[in-house]
Amino acid sequence: MIETLEGLIQTLARLPGLGPRSARRVALHLVQRPETVMLPLAESLQAVAASICRCEICGALDNSSPCSICTNPARGNGILCVVETVGDIWALERARVFSGRYHVLGGVLSALSGIRPEDLAIESLQHRILDEGITEIILALNATIDGQATGYYLADILANHPVRITRLAQGVPMGGELDWLDDGTLAAAFGARR
Amino acid sequence: MIETLEGLIQTLARLPGLGPRSARRVALHLVQRPETVMLPLAESLQAVAASICRCEICGALDNSSPCSICTNPARGNGILCVVETVGDIWALERARVFSGRYHVLGGVLSALSGIRPEDLAIESLQHRILDEGITEIILALNATIDGQATGYYLADILANHPVRITRLAQGVPMGGELDWLDDGTLAAAFGARR
Repeated sequence: MIETLEGLIQTLARLPGLGPRSARRVALHLVQRPETVMLPLAESLQAVAASICRCEICGALDNSSPCSICTNPARGNGILCVVETVGDIWALERARVFSGRYHVLGGVLSALSGIRPEDLAIESLQHRILDEGITEIILALNATIDGQATGYYLADILANHPVRITRLAQGVPMGGELDWLDDGTLAAAFGARR
Repeated sequence: MIETLEGLIQTLARLPGLGPRSARRVALHLVQRPETVMLPLAESLQAVAASICRCEICGALDNSSPCSICTNPARGNGILCVVETVGDIWALERARVFSGRYHVLGGVLSALSGIRPEDLAIESLQHRILDEGITEIILALNATIDGQATGYYLADILANHPVRITRLAQGVPMGGELDWLDDGTLAAAFGARR
């Protein structure tokens, strides 16, 4: 097979959710449609790469820094939602559940992966609390061991700041059947029953 | 979210094997690595799109026409392997099971999709039999209803040519457990037992 095509398949195979087999399938789809799919995709990738930058305040990705959420006065309601990655902002924005501003930590503390507090955007979070007059911090971290541990660490660090610290509720997800839920979720849902 | 990024996610979501959710995951992976993954991928796509063309003889995709298989004298052994798509050539070349040349039909006859004989590369196949002194045609079509029907149609059309027409054997796949095979495969395996 052609060398450039082999290279493309290898690049595709390293994307999340794709493997060698699905990468070949995507490559086959692309090479059969060079003008209608392949080149538009390449141009789209370049356009996004050229326009995107990281917001200097919250760490989100946007085509300007500070980003459109940080510069929108309507979203400066004194509530800051702390998330692990930019993808979490996308998920929360899609759900339209939050009208304040975000702060991207850039990961969670992890002894296994060697991620220490100084690797995360914690110092800038403390500066923002003072600068923006934040009254509430919502810790919207993933419900994993590392995510929860990071939540406790942050709550501890921020204890001497005049802010209310909240966490996302844990419980039965919408449409979830009790039968299929793990013990931890059931215990959390029982413990936090209203 | 940024418009260019929305467009990229929509383009990715239309690729085979990807949906809106996995496209977002891939896009997130890409935008977090603009220099190391995103731009190299765009360049790889453009390089492949610029270098690839369809072989005027067999219909395969290569960076020259006629392709490297059609111009390789060692592969002109008088045996022609008829396949549906270019992906089938890739699969057979990976398996290294065939040392002759290929002929891409470009699909199979299908009443449902409205694909008629004149939509497939059948006329050029007949020309090749005479021009290249072909002695055997291997019908390596997918074992689907349409693939099999196309095989019978081709065998019928080529009956007045002095070529031997063979089909791939059907039976139990390597590592296949009888328990899990469908009735059609079991019947074929029994019927063709040796």
